[in-house]
Amino acid sequence: MDFETRFRAQLDALRDEGNYRIFADLERQVGQFPKVRNHGSGPDEVTVWCSNDYLGMGQHPDVIGAMVDVTRASGTGAGGTRNISGTAHQHVALEEELADLHGKEDALVFSSGYVSNWAALSTLGSRLPGAVIFSDALNHASMIEGMRHSRARREIWTHNDPEDLDRRLSAYGPEVPKIVAFESVYSMDGDIAPIEEICDVADAHGAMTYIDEVHAVGMYGPRGGGVAEELGLMDRITLIEGTLGKAYGCFGGYITGSAALCDFVRSFASGFIFTTAIPPAVAAAARVAVKHLKSSEIERMRQRRQVARLRRLLDAHGIPHMDNPSHIIPVMIGDPVKCRFIADVLMQEHGIYVQPINYPTVPKGTERLRFTPGPLHTDADIDHLVAALNGLWKQCALARAVA
Amino acid sequence: MDFETRFRAQLDALRDEGNYRIFADLERQVGQFPKVRNHGSGPDEVTVWCSNDYLGMGQHPDVIGAMVDVTRASGTGAGGTRNISGTAHQHVALEEELADLHGKEDALVFSSGYVSNWAALSTLGSRLPGAVIFSDALNHASMIEGMRHSRARREIWTHNDPEDLDRRLSAYGPEVPKIVAFESVYSMDGDIAPIEEICDVADAHGAMTYIDEVHAVGMYGPRGGGVAEELGLMDRITLIEGTLGKAYGCFGGYITGSAALCDFVRSFASGFIFTTAIPPAVAAAARVAVKHLKSSEIERMRQRRQVARLRRLLDAHGIPHMDNPSHIIPVMIGDPVKCRFIADVLMQEHGIYVQPINYPTVPKGTERLRFTPGPLHTDADIDHLVAALNGLWKQCALARAVA
Ligand SMILES: Cc1ncc(COP(=O)(O)O)c(C=O)c1O
Ligand SMILES: Cc1ncc(COP(=O)(O)O)c(C=O)c1O
Repeated sequence: MDFETRFRAQLDALRDEGNYRIFADLERQVGQFPKVRNHGSGPDEVTVWCSNDYLGMGQHPDVIGAMVDVTRASGTGAGGTRNISGTAHQHVALEEELADLHGKEDALVFSSGYVSNWAALSTLGSRLPGAVIFSDALNHASMIEGMRHSRARREIWTHNDPEDLDRRLSAYGPEVPKIVAFESVYSMDGDIAPIEEICDVADAHGAMTYIDEVHAVGMYGPRGGGVAEELGLMDRITLIEGTLGKAYGCFGGYITGSAALCDFVRSFASGFIFTTAIPPAVAAAARVAVKHLKSSEIERMRQRRQVARLRRLLDAHGIPHMDNPSHIIPVMIGDPVKCRFIADVLMQEHGIYVQPINYPTVPKGTERLRFTPGPLHTDADIDHLVAALNGLWKQCALARAVA
Repeated sequence: MDFETRFRAQLDALRDEGNYRIFADLERQVGQFPKVRNHGSGPDEVTVWCSNDYLGMGQHPDVIGAMVDVTRASGTGAGGTRNISGTAHQHVALEEELADLHGKEDALVFSSGYVSNWAALSTLGSRLPGAVIFSDALNHASMIEGMRHSRARREIWTHNDPEDLDRRLSAYGPEVPKIVAFESVYSMDGDIAPIEEICDVADAHGAMTYIDEVHAVGMYGPRGGGVAEELGLMDRITLIEGTLGKAYGCFGGYITGSAALCDFVRSFASGFIFTTAIPPAVAAAARVAVKHLKSSEIERMRQRRQVARLRRLLDAHGIPHMDNPSHIIPVMIGDPVKCRFIADVLMQEHGIYVQPINYPTVPKGTERLRFTPGPLHTDADIDHLVAALNGLWKQCALARAVA
């Protein structure tokens, strides 16, 4: 069997669609972020406009300090699964910090946000006999794969539509265990779920609520507990899932909830049990980031200012972007080849790095550039970006007029 | 719906069987390993006998140095998925190092060994239409979940039995894409697959070979390339999978293979695409560990000496252990409650930490203690362990004689 030919044929198909991905090869430099060294084609230094290190915490001296100190003191790896010699005191402390962040009894740390969603949903869906999972139509791949893996029945409800959710829940009797799974901030459109209405509907049907706050933890709420914290709704959510790899600037994922819920997932989730624990030093760094953003507002305030400023300037220049209440600014292109072309020009000619977002991350036909301004982007960085985009948009308008 | 009661009921069932897990809460101290601080019940300092940091590389000054230096220079996290701003130069360098280790064209790093197996097998199984995966009966949970997720047809062949594999392969025509998936060192019994015979059978049927060398990389072969390297068989394996979290003392997983194979998994695997890349500093540390063990034999030699010494002393005292050609020494207990009891006595009275290995890590009735002596265990450590075990075995014999 000629496997190579089969692999190449599918890769060629991706290339033909314009969906073949080329990774930027970057080197972050502490103190310079969002400017990074570029090892790929293009200028030697570029400004990153698509990082999920939303608040620059990956460069924060206290977070770096914790990672360095614990690496020096405890070494590089955990050396085992959580059960077999891999639980370090730093994991325990991080889980306490996260439970406190969300006002829950307990928390459980996983290898990543992806694994936390996948493992928690596949365990809940498969271990609660007869369970039905009600999933928002735009849920993240990690949730979809977890639900799929669980083999539980799934009902997909219209994105952010509590009425459709209500209708679908009504089709099942009170004896059916129901799990309502959704996100707070949807990362590609930047829209935010109507959490309270969803909780009301879920409560009326005795359903458990499962929220992914991956793009919101650290960013929203007075202590960074996410949108549910900002709206005073954390106690209405059964399970809050988050990541340590985005606003917290580190790596790893987690769930929080009741002691019994966390113990249940801890005891039965394959994706939690059969894998090496994250390095103690990473856990320690993440804990410092979580702790810091519980009391510091400055990063969030400065970030909001820069997000608002970029939006305002895009509007002033007539560059269309999706309106939403979050920190994510999608500029729609609607074609994979054009999207890559614009991104290439920005990188090569302007030292602006924004990855083209194509299928499968977004549906075909909705290709976009996704900007995430942070507290470390200067006003000059924003002006430079807007000038570059404006130049490109004028060229395109010209091209359209001539064609 | 009362979810709490359902969670608790399943946890109570685990407790009744003796399979409820309690994690040790440890703090590694560089320079002291395998001695660690114990934050749980028992003595303040204990000796770890069940670590998968097999060679103590998690404490190696060069590995620590790389992690510290890159954390200082580049920060704590990657800040994005590999595609969206998360590829650091350190990931690229690590992938080159790993491709070279296994003599392959390319490599791909994942969040963990678990995720690498899960993502690679689910992608291969689902994206090669009509594929059948031939899986050794004792394959690891991460492989099983990946195959299950792929929804490809699966044939389970008798553990380490190339004849059974041959019979099962014969049932499918040459037009069926076939993947033979197995491990080299099986971590719970410590036995090793007949790799050459398996490759012969696979070749005869035009099947792709997929090997998990998680418990072998760094440990076997002149450059630490695993059992396949030791036997000169790396070029006969289509895909070699490994971890950076065990003998390499860090965190993360990988696959290596042809450029097209790695590109295929890179382009289509959900578990690779939709998740934050591992921290650049962890990638850098892992690379140093891989590089170091390509030329240094001293860790492997000293470890083999200590493994042989423990085996010899167990034999001398009549303490039964499974015979195998690897570095893993399983002492069978065969009952979850007894297994935990013995482990508790070792911990509380002797400062010896060996996690009881119960279901679901091993089948019920095969509960065991699993010892992994390393180069940093002293002769005195081994003597102390054997004396403690000997005392316990004598007590048990006495108990049996009296009963
Ligand atoms: C909504 C959502 N959930 C979960 C994840 C996975 O988190 P992590 O990157 O920590 O694996 C992501 C993105 O990576 C995401 O966008
Ligand atoms: C055979 C085998 N494969 C894969 C894994 C997963 O590797 P990792 O710990 O890096 O997730 C493990 C253990 O953890 C294992 O024993």
